[in-house]
Parts: sequence; structure tokens; C-alpha cells
Amino acid sequence: MTDPYAPTPADRFTFGLWTVGNRGRDPFGHETRPELDPVEAVHRLAELGAYGVNFHDDDLVPPGSSPAERDAIVARFRAALDQTGLCVPMATTNLFSHPVFKEGAFTANDPDVRRHAVAKTLDAIDLGLELGAEVYVMWGGREGVEAEAAKDVRAALDRYAEAVNLCCAYVRDQGAALRFALEPKPNEPRGDMLLPTVGHALAFIERLEWPDMVGLNPEFAHETMSGLSFTHAVAQCLWHDKLFHIDLNAQRIGKYDQDFRFGSEGIRDAFYLVQLLEAAAWDGMRHFDAHAYRTEDREGVWDFARGCMRTYLILRDKARRFATDPEIQAALAAAQVDRITEPTSPGGLGAEAVAALRRDRPAPETLVDLAARGLGHERLDQLVTELLLGVR
Amino acid sequence: MTDPYAPTPADRFTFGLWTVGNRGRDPFGHETRPELDPVEAVHRLAELGAYGVNFHDDDLVPPGSSPAERDAIVARFRAALDQTGLCVPMATTNLFSHPVFKEGAFTANDPDVRRHAVAKTLDAIDLGLELGAEVYVMWGGREGVEAEAAKDVRAALDRYAEAVNLCCAYVRDQGAALRFALEPKPNEPRGDMLLPTVGHALAFIERLEWPDMVGLNPEFAHETMSGLSFTHAVAQCLWHDKLFHIDLNAQRIGKYDQDFRFGSEGIRDAFYLVQLLEAAAWDGMRHFDAHAYRTEDREGVWDFARGCMRTYLILRDKARRFATDPEIQAALAAAQVDRITEPTSPGGLGAEAVAALRRDRPAPETLVDLAARGLGHERLDQLVTELLLGVR
Amino acid sequence: MTDPYAPTPADRFTFGLWTVGNRGRDPFGHETRPELDPVEAVHRLAELGAYGVNFHDDDLVPPGSSPAERDAIVARFRAALDQTGLCVPMATTNLFSHPVFKEGAFTANDPDVRRHAVAKTLDAIDLGLELGAEVYVMWGGREGVEAEAAKDVRAALDRYAEAVNLCCAYVRDQGAALRFALEPKPNEPRGDMLLPTVGHALAFIERLEWPDMVGLNPEFAHETMSGLSFTHAVAQCLWHDKLFHIDLNAQRIGKYDQDFRFGSEGIRDAFYLVQLLEAAAWDGMRHFDAHAYRTEDREGVWDFARGCMRTYLILRDKARRFATDPEIQAALAAAQVDRITEPTSPGGLGAEAVAALRRDRPAPETLVDLAARGLGHERLDQLVTELLLGVR
Amino acid sequence: MTDPYAPTPADRFTFGLWTVGNRGRDPFGHETRPELDPVEAVHRLAELGAYGVNFHDDDLVPPGSSPAERDAIVARFRAALDQTGLCVPMATTNLFSHPVFKEGAFTANDPDVRRHAVAKTLDAIDLGLELGAEVYVMWGGREGVEAEAAKDVRAALDRYAEAVNLCCAYVRDQGAALRFALEPKPNEPRGDMLLPTVGHALAFIERLEWPDMVGLNPEFAHETMSGLSFTHAVAQCLWHDKLFHIDLNAQRIGKYDQDFRFGSEGIRDAFYLVQLLEAAAWDGMRHFDAHAYRTEDREGVWDFARGCMRTYLILRDKARRFATDPEIQAALAAAQVDRITEPTSPGGLGAEAVAALRRDRPAPETLVDLAARGLGHERLDQLVTELLLGVR
Repeated sequence: MTDPYAPTPADRFTFGLWTVGNRGRDPFGHETRPELDPVEAVHRLAELGAYGVNFHDDDLVPPGSSPAERDAIVARFRAALDQTGLCVPMATTNLFSHPVFKEGAFTANDPDVRRHAVAKTLDAIDLGLELGAEVYVMWGGREGVEAEAAKDVRAALDRYAEAVNLCCAYVRDQGAALRFALEPKPNEPRGDMLLPTVGHALAFIERLEWPDMVGLNPEFAHETMSGLSFTHAVAQCLWHDKLFHIDLNAQRIGKYDQDFRFGSEGIRDAFYLVQLLEAAAWDGMRHFDAHAYRTEDREGVWDFARGCMRTYLILRDKARRFATDPEIQAALAAAQVDRITEPTSPGGLGAEAVAALRRDRPAPETLVDLAARGLGHERLDQLVTELLLGVR
Repeated sequence: MTDPYAPTPADRFTFGLWTVGNRGRDPFGHETRPELDPVEAVHRLAELGAYGVNFHDDDLVPPGSSPAERDAIVARFRAALDQTGLCVPMATTNLFSHPVFKEGAFTANDPDVRRHAVAKTLDAIDLGLELGAEVYVMWGGREGVEAEAAKDVRAALDRYAEAVNLCCAYVRDQGAALRFALEPKPNEPRGDMLLPTVGHALAFIERLEWPDMVGLNPEFAHETMSGLSFTHAVAQCLWHDKLFHIDLNAQRIGKYDQDFRFGSEGIRDAFYLVQLLEAAAWDGMRHFDAHAYRTEDREGVWDFARGCMRTYLILRDKARRFATDPEIQAALAAAQVDRITEPTSPGGLGAEAVAALRRDRPAPETLVDLAARGLGHERLDQLVTELLLGVR
Repeated sequence: MTDPYAPTPADRFTFGLWTVGNRGRDPFGHETRPELDPVEAVHRLAELGAYGVNFHDDDLVPPGSSPAERDAIVARFRAALDQTGLCVPMATTNLFSHPVFKEGAFTANDPDVRRHAVAKTLDAIDLGLELGAEVYVMWGGREGVEAEAAKDVRAALDRYAEAVNLCCAYVRDQGAALRFALEPKPNEPRGDMLLPTVGHALAFIERLEWPDMVGLNPEFAHETMSGLSFTHAVAQCLWHDKLFHIDLNAQRIGKYDQDFRFGSEGIRDAFYLVQLLEAAAWDGMRHFDAHAYRTEDREGVWDFARGCMRTYLILRDKARRFATDPEIQAALAAAQVDRITEPTSPGGLGAEAVAALRRDRPAPETLVDLAARGLGHERLDQLVTELLLGVR
Repeated sequence: MTDPYAPTPADRFTFGLWTVGNRGRDPFGHETRPELDPVEAVHRLAELGAYGVNFHDDDLVPPGSSPAERDAIVARFRAALDQTGLCVPMATTNLFSHPVFKEGAFTANDPDVRRHAVAKTLDAIDLGLELGAEVYVMWGGREGVEAEAAKDVRAALDRYAEAVNLCCAYVRDQGAALRFALEPKPNEPRGDMLLPTVGHALAFIERLEWPDMVGLNPEFAHETMSGLSFTHAVAQCLWHDKLFHIDLNAQRIGKYDQDFRFGSEGIRDAFYLVQLLEAAAWDGMRHFDAHAYRTEDREGVWDFARGCMRTYLILRDKARRFATDPEIQAALAAAQVDRITEPTSPGGLGAEAVAALRRDRPAPETLVDLAARGLGHERLDQLVTELLLGVR
């Protein structure tokens, strides 16, 4: 019998070189794992059933490489891609590790730092395009403050927008189809970061020069750190037609950025997220921006990668059962879940329709009935819990 | 000598009837204070130096009042306003206390509940306009979920937008100048609420029928509950030209909605907020959406109200000193705070300018220098700390 | 076929009158459900398979009842117990709803309030003993502060200890076997509460007059609010032999006190908790201190109660599978989980043993091996995830 | 005029070598500052007015040093101490950086890792004693889990206790006066850590072999991460007579471990803490376990160190004003703050006293008065706010 939860490239699972290549360093401890050759990563990921691999510029080409070294590295990497069939759907720039970015990159106070950040990004866009990337992620890891007085936030948003505009302009000039995806995060490594949530980034995009080129790369851990619902964040992205990419992992609320294996914390949240992505028939990459526990050796890294994908597929299967389980469907009907699609004002926004809505409002006794009626959410939620626990 | 921190109407301080009228009920305990007559509230607030008073429909006119009773209440209230000179700059609707809203108001699954919510809001808009309100706040206290399966979030956002559009349409039909201000909140009383942060609401507005009519009413406590920077949230509102109203209070991160006296927690955050509002010369109301501790009797309520305004004025004075303190100004210069206003690409977004930026990028040795240079944030932040502590 | 997850009294499930009787009031809204007669609660809980029912004094006997009224109420309630076989394993006092406790009960600054709190508790102990309670829970709902200056915390701990000592003294004088269980909570309804976690309460007990009489009643929601591991808290209680009672429910980190249905949030945490309680063969009550969502009517309340028990039993079954699953057992062995029971110093604490431990320390090359070895936690955790999801 | 906030050794301020020596590495970025020679640290700290300097074994003696190298390093360091008069009041062991500790140190599943951890600690105790340390801090940075199934928490507490007992035994055998101070932390770098709060550690100590030798080293950031009151934690330590050392810094609730400059966040909390330490006439070290922002160069590090001490002294001065300010004292009296020291039961715990307390309870009408009376906490808290802001 075949394993129903074995991934295939059709599932569109991707990993970053920095995720399976994570060496276990943390603020209090040194690396616990050896370096992983990107080419080995490609081969192992392909064997496991992944669709693609993503990278920061520096993950693939070590900073300081000569052009010839760079080309040799890229050629060797491309050969591995060709051999395995793995794609590079997304690329990004490391604008956070080097000390020059300690005060910001796109929003550093010093214009020279900002120029370096933009130029490094344009280089990395070239690299991404060269390897076929269709989405370019922007995580502003250093755009923020600890000493609040040191940053004019409104002017920093101007500069942030300018930098994104410059990248869009460059891509347009190339005639390339690359789209950008902003990745919000509330804090860590900075005390407070700009564009801290999915919402802030969605709003920011509206003020850009080419808003259509820019969307979101929401990350499970980043929204969850703030205690916000990641599923709702993704739903709002979809509502705005701005879900360009997604970062899947696991995280506890109110803790350091954990980037745990998808589904290892927050099973219920992970389920509703998978259900939403599948119900929306979203055709983007299921990217895991996570890493193995520091306790793991190299083999543990592949257990980690395998686990991310398996849990997604298990939950996808549960989402399908949810849609066909008669008791769950009955409970949804009792909760009137479908009626949310009925317009509140059947006649629209015209003066007459508004007057009619007001005139034909529910009578006081109807309100009493509506107030007294139970919605059956306990029953519904328990059915979902039992679906998740595999006992229905 | 006159008290430099005594408020006057020119300071534009406002309170809600529900704030000074709060009776100290909480999830575990009964009321500790008697009811406060709205007319008495008007007189006391005027004596204390406030500019205005705001209300939910039900705060002023008890639900179930007959038209004649309503008119009598309003006439008596207006007389108090006339007598004291107090304004009503803002009004709002209670869409959360009555059990009929237990599953949502504008986004309830049941269309009748939604119709009732819109109709109640239109009534309340009339009341607000009658008393001169220029801003209408919308807090979606019940728009959210505990049992995630019970709500189609994308469709709920459709309904949310429809409801706001209906209210805008009504105001336009009246030829009134009323503007709407959305008030985001992450959770409580619902497990997760729609439009959980300032960012999510800013983005949502862009999809409305008349986005110019709708802005934000950010609340200190609500953003802070999620550990987000309220000052940054307000800065982004200003950047979007969407700060229509503001709710000032105090709150600890990660706790229940506390609504404490402004400045009683988060002194540093309160300072930077006041500095921002004053630096932006923002001309809106400084509204305190807070209440006295449950330990207080009636007199404690007025101590509370007095304290909110005094602390604002003390911090406003510090913001002025900040702007003229030579050591602070020197530290800002050392941190290059002003240079954030310089364009990253002096030549703009054209292909030639982008190419120039890339070509003229900082040399490697410049980057080494930029990376090694200290920004002096410790010194700057300590100077601000000492300004706040009153020792400079 | 019989339902393997149908509860019976042998499972020792209990509910509070205040849990199934919760009327859905919250800080922003009125009651959504009618009152529930305690006698009806007894009958319904018995039908559902519960073992017992607990109460605060005021839950059963409304404040202000005359002695005759009290006796009639108690007689009627006892008749229902006799009829159904339901027990009253625990009782407690409401020291938080009445305004007199607004500044504290056992630790109020005013000695008269403290005396009233102790006297009310002694009355309630009588009531509990009369109905057979063996554990008496103490939740200090109002012991805390918002205005820090208003409380001398060290002296308040003296008074807290005095109050517990007085109750112990009373029980000893009665020759009763009642034991006390302290219930910690970090905040809400007070800004910061005394004895905020299981740890603080465990330490506090050591300074009491009769520490053996006092243990803990840890609550899932209360530890989780602070982001602490509830399972670890319960494990430390067991380690100290101080787990006298337990409050089961569900909660998100960093949010208001939610008291959701057991297992509805934090499935993984709930599983490890059940596993711990069962592995320890803990013989106390599985008490659900939770309530139905505010969206529910009366029938929803019983769905809620049913769901709490079912989820516990499902997880108990999974704990049994965990113990026999060969792959999980192999992963535990790979992680050397059992070796934690080996003494670090086989020779004990004597000088020679310490010297030997130091002398025979692992060689540098051994440390290199130990550092490089993988622990297989990703594999282990994924196996548990799949056990929970019901796919193994 | 002399600076009233210039520190002197009499103020007992200490810093760790790892604090001023912090190089600005974080999870996403490389070092931004060069190494700091411990001898230079000693000289600079002495110039700034510090009393002492503390270290982890590896901070002073790099791992892998030969005995001769070690002795040379220690001799050179001691010479700097002698020259400057700086003391070494505290020492500790690094049991978290090396990969061998990735699964724990005192509570690793592997006995060899535990033996290495204990032996390394005994070596470090020798080093600490050699340099005059009187307190030995134990921070269990790796004692915890991510994959819950991988740790038997109760057995781990056994091993934790055994390790502390071994260290105590060793010190007793040496006839040394060293005392141990446990430093709790809730999470980071592990997902959940053992002894997560001050309370858990206080309780744990009671089960040790020599509880008198072991106390607490509470850290501002660590308690605050969980949203707990650090001042209350320290107060409970003092109540148990277990405050052996303290780590001062600044932190936002629910964020990564920030270790900011003392007083830079949480001014109000910092004030109440200083007030408590001074009111208790606590004679321990005021140790700053913090580091400069990553934006700083070397000079910024000394600004950071200077700022920590200055803010402490400014707040100490405010604590003295608090004690003499007549309005504040009147508000404290109105809040009956002193009455908390009156026994609740003047007659003690005897049966007669308990009966008397119950019999002489406040009459119903007294309770009505007590419930209605205001406590004046708003006024009191506002007075403290104005004291902090320097306007009274």
C-alpha cells in the first residue's frame, strides 16, 4: 500500500537553503551541526519529494566571492537542479547578518547603507531571475528600533517605499515577471520592527508606485508571536488578492522566534490554515521557513523536513474529510456559516435600499429570539477536535 | 503661580460617558460605583478643563426608550453642553452588550442580526449628528470567533465592508460631513477578532467604496495587548493620512484589556506618542478611553480624569524640551536621525538612476567603516530617560 | 458497540456549579443564558457520566439567605446528590464578586475586610464539610494590585499566610480531614496578583504553619496565560507531592482568561498533561473549570461538558498507545529518556564520590562525540504528532 | 557642584565580563564589536565607579587553556583587580554555549553530559573562590525541552537537585562560605525551561539537601518575559530570605530576551524595584546583566554601563523623596497601606481566637460602608507618576 502522506512535487513543497542548512547556532550557543553543501541539500530535498528550494543570496554565494567563483557556484547548483528537477520558485536577500545593517537596511538613517542595501538586492534579484525565481521575498530584519528617538518612523516608511519602488522599477526595466512579497515580523532581532504584521504590510503596499507587483509572504511564526491569528491574516491576504508566498512553521505566542517544524505546535491553527489554503485553491508554494531543533544531527534535519510535509498532507486530508463529514456539515448549517455570504442590504448602497433596511429591521420580538438562540459552536468545535484527533 | 499642567479646552481633551461612568464591574465582580448621570459628567468634565464628551448611543439613551423619552434625554444633555461649552466631537454605537450580538454584529452569520446592527448604527449616527459629532467610531467588539470553523473570514470581511459602506452611503445621502474611524482590537471579548491591528484596518479601508471617508481610531491598549508599538501604529496612520481619532489609556502587554489611566503604565511609550502627535501638529481630539480602578469611589473617578490630562501635558512639555535640549539634539545628529529624509536614489526611479545607484554603491572599505561606526543610541536613549525622569 | 470515550463516574470527572451555570456575561456584554438551577445541574451532570460537582458558597446559597433558607437549599441539593450518586469532592469561597473585596480579601489593607473574608471562608468550609468535600480550593482572585504603591507585598504575604493558617487551624479543631489547595493566577481581575504561578504558591506553602495540609490546584488557563508550561507546573507539583486538585480548560497564551472547553486549544499540551496524570496514577479529581462559549444556549452547555470529558478520554487512550507504540518507544530509547533516572554521582554526595566524579569526567574526545550525536527529537516529536492526529 | 547620580563603589554596582564584553551577535547577525580584554573591562568599570566584576569560567579563561595559561590569565586579571580595587563578588559557569550541552547540562538525559557539567562547575567554583566570589550563580540555560516527550520532568528535577547538592557538598568540604543563587528563566534558548520563574526555584530549594546554602538570583528580564511582576518576585524572595543576588536590566513582556540597559524600558517597574531593595536595606550586589544595543561601538558600551548605574541612582533618590513627600504619605494613609501589618486574628491561631474572629465579624452595614469607600489609588498612583516624571 502506498503511503497516503508521502509528498510529491505536485504538492508544491519548498524549503530554504537556510532552513535545512541551519546549523543550530542560537543566542546562547554555538553551532551543533556541520555545514550543508547546497548541492547536497538539493539532492536530499528532491529525494524527499519537495518541489523546490529557495535561498538568500549569501546562502548560495558566500559574500566576497569573485565573479568567477560566483558563476562556478551557480553553475554547479544549477546542475543539481537540472539533475533533480527541483525548482527555485523564490529568492531573497540577506540584509541582516552583516554589521553594516545594524541600524537598518532599506531604512537605515545613513543613505550609504541604504544604497548598499538596494544594490545588494538588485544583485540578488539578478541571481534569483537567473535561477528562475518568480517571487522575491523581502524581510526587513533590521528595519526597526530599540532607542525610539533614533528613528523618524514616517520618514523611514518613505524610504522603505522608495527601496521597494526601486526594486520594482528595476524588474520592470528588465521586462521580468518577478513579483515581490513582503514578510512582516513584529520584533526580533530589533526591539520593534516596521511593518510588524500582515495588516501593516498590506496597507503599506497601497502607497507604493506599482502596488500590483507587491504582495505578502506571511509567516506562521511571525504573526503568532504577537498572539494574532495566522489563519485570519492569510484570509485577509487572500481577500486582498495579495497572498504571493507563505512561510510555514510553528511557534508559541509571546516567545522568541522559534521556527519549529510545521504542526509541532498549534495543531488546530495549522489545520485551519491548511483548510483555508486548500479551500481557496491557492496555487502558491507551501514553503517551510523552519529548522530542526538544535539537538539534531544531520539525519535529524531530514526527519524535520519529512515531518513538515507529512503533517501538511495529513491536515490536507482532514480538510477534505471536514468538507464531507455529515455531522460537521450539519453543525455548520446550524451555525448558519453559509449565510454570511448573503448581502446585508439586498438592494445595495442606494438611498432607497438603506432606507428599506432601516425600515424593515427585525422586530423587537425577533431580536429576543435571535438573542436566545444557541449557535452550536461547542458542538461544532468538538467535532473538529475529534476530526483532528483522528477519532471520527 | 499658575499650574503649567492644568488642562484647558484648547488642549482638546475628551472623555467618553462610558469612561467616567464606568461602574467597576469586571468578569469576576459586581459594580463598585453608583451610576453617573451624563449631565453630571458633562459638568464635572467641563470643570476639569476638558473640551468634549463622547458616547455610545446606549450610554446616553437607555435601550428601549420611547421617542419622547429619547428627545427629553437629548434636550437635557444638550442643555448641559450649552451651559458648559463642552462639545460632542465623536459618537459611536454599542454593538456588543446585547446578547443578540453574541455571534457578531456587522459580520454575524445571521443576516437579520447584521441588519439590526446597521439600523441601530444609522439611528446612532442621527443622534451623533444631532449633537454635532464629526467623527464616528466603529469598534467591532463582537466581530470574531472562538470556534474557527463557525466563520468564513473572507466572506465576513465582505460583510464588514458592506456595513461600513452602508453607513458611508447614509451619511453621504444626508450631506453630512461625518467621517468614520475604525478601532482595531486583537481579542477580548472574542477569542480572535477581525481587523485585529491598526495595519489590518488600514488595509481594509482601501477596499471600501469611499475610502476617503474612513480612517482609524487606534487605541493604546489594543495595540499594546499584542506587544506592538502603539507609537509606530500611529505613525503609520499619519503616514497614510488616516489618523481620524485616538484612544489614550495604558496597558501591559499580553494581559486582559486594562484601560488604565493614561501614562500609568508605559511612560516611555506614552512620551513618544505625545511627541509624535505634537510633532505632527495633529489637530484631532486627545480622547481618553480609560476608566478608574475598581477600588475607586466617585471622587477617585475625577482623580483619574484629572491624571490622564495632567500626564499628557507633562509629557507634552517634555516633548518641547526634547526639541531644544542641546545634548539630545547632538545625540540625534550623531545618530544621523535627520538623514533618513534624504532620498536613497537622488535621481528617482528611472532606469538610469537605478543603474547609477548600483554603480556608485559604497566601496567595500566604506562598508567596513559604516559597520564599525557606533550610532550612539545608548547615549541618546539615556538622555531621553533622564529627560523623562526630570533630571535634565 | 459501546463508545470507548463515554465517561463514567470511575473516570472522576467533576464540574463546578459556576461552570455549567455560567451565563455568558463578559466585560463587554450581558448574560446570554438563563440561570441554571443547581439541582438541574446535578441531574444533567450525572446523566453525562460525571463523578462530582463543586461549588463556591454563593453558587449554591445566594448571599443574604437566612439560616432556614440555607438549610432548605442544602437539603434540596443533597437530595439531588443522593438521587444521582454525584459527589461534592471540592468546595470553595467566593471572595471576589462582592465590592467589599475590591482591594483584596485575605490581603486587603483593611483588617475588617480580612476578617470578613476569613469568617466567610469558615462558613463555607462548614458547608463544604457538610456536603462531603475533601479538598478546599483557595483562589485569591482579588489579592493583588494595580497601583503598586498601595500594597506592601511582603506584609501581604504575611497576611495571606495568616489567613490560610487560620483556616487550617479551624479544620484541625474540627478534626476534619479537609485539605486546602491554592490556585495561582498571574493577573485578571487584578493587574498583578500575589502567588502568580504554581511555583510561587509551592514556595509559599513551605512557610505555613501546617504545610502538609496545603497543596495546589493548578489551572491550565492560569499558567498558560503567562506562557508557562502547564505540564511542567503539574510535574513539579507532583514532584513536591502537592497536587491536591486540578482545573482543566483551554487558553491561549497572553490573552484574557478564556476558560475554554478542555482540549479546544493546545491539543499537544492537553495530551502531555493527560499523559502525565495517568503515568503518575494520580488519583485526584479531573475537574473542568471552564464554561461554554457565550454563543451557546442551554443545550450548548451540555455539549461543552460532554466535549471536555470526551477529549480527556481520547487523550488518555492516546497516552496508552504512546506507551506501547514500538516506534515511539524506540525513539524514546534513542533520546535516552530513561537514562535521566541514573544518578549523576553513583557514589552520592560524599567528598570521595565528588572527587571521583571530577576525576573520572568524560575525556575531551568523548565530549566531541557527545556533542556531535543527534538525539532524534524531530523524529520523536513527529511520531507523537501523528499519534495525536490519529494516523498511527 | 558634584553630580548626585555619579556612582561610587559604596553603591555596590557590578557588571559581568560578558555584559560589557558582549559583541552584538544575535540570532540573525554577526558580531558588531571587537573583543574586549577582561583587564581593560576591569579598568574601565573601576573608572566608572563600579564595585565589582563577575564572570563565567569561559569569559575569563578560554576553554582549552592549559593549566599554565589559565594561571597566567588569572594572575593578570587579579593584578588588574588589585590595581583598581574592583572585587569579584560572584562567579558562574557557562553550561550553555558548547554543543555538548544541547540537550541539557545538569538535567541532560546522558549521565556523561551531566558529569561533565558538574565537573566543569566544580572547576569554576575553584576559580570563583580563588578570586574571592561569595555568591555562585546557577542559570540552567539548557535545562528544558522543545520535544516534550524527550524529558521526564520529575526525574529531571531529581537530577537538577542532585547537581546542586553535589556543588553544595563540594563547597562544604572545602570549608568555603560560598552560597548558590539559582537564576530562573521561562524559555529561550529552550522552548520551555525547568524552574521557569522565581517561584518555581524557591519551591525547588526546599527539597535540596542544604537549602540554607541556596537562594535566588532573580533577573528583571526573565520574570518580565512572562508578564510577571519582577518587584513582586523580589519581594517574595525577600519574604523567604532568599534574595542572594539580583540581575538588573530591562525587557518588554512577551518578547525575546532583550537584556536592555536598566531603566530603558519599564521605568515604573524599575522604580518600585529600587524602592523595594532600598526599603529592605538589602545589602547584596546591584548587578547589571545587560548589554549595549548592537548599534553601539566600544564607547557606546561605556555609555550603556554608565546609564545603568545613573538610572539606578536617580530612582534611588526618587525612592527617598517618596518616603518624605507629604502628599504621597497622605495618599498612602488614605489607602491604609500600613494597616496590612495588623494581624487579622489578634488572638492568633487558637480555637478561641478563631471563634472570636468569626463571632466578631463586621456587621452587614459595616460591609456596605467598606464596599462603598474609595481607596484613592488613582490619586496615589498619579502622585507616583509625577514623582517619576520629576514634576514634584
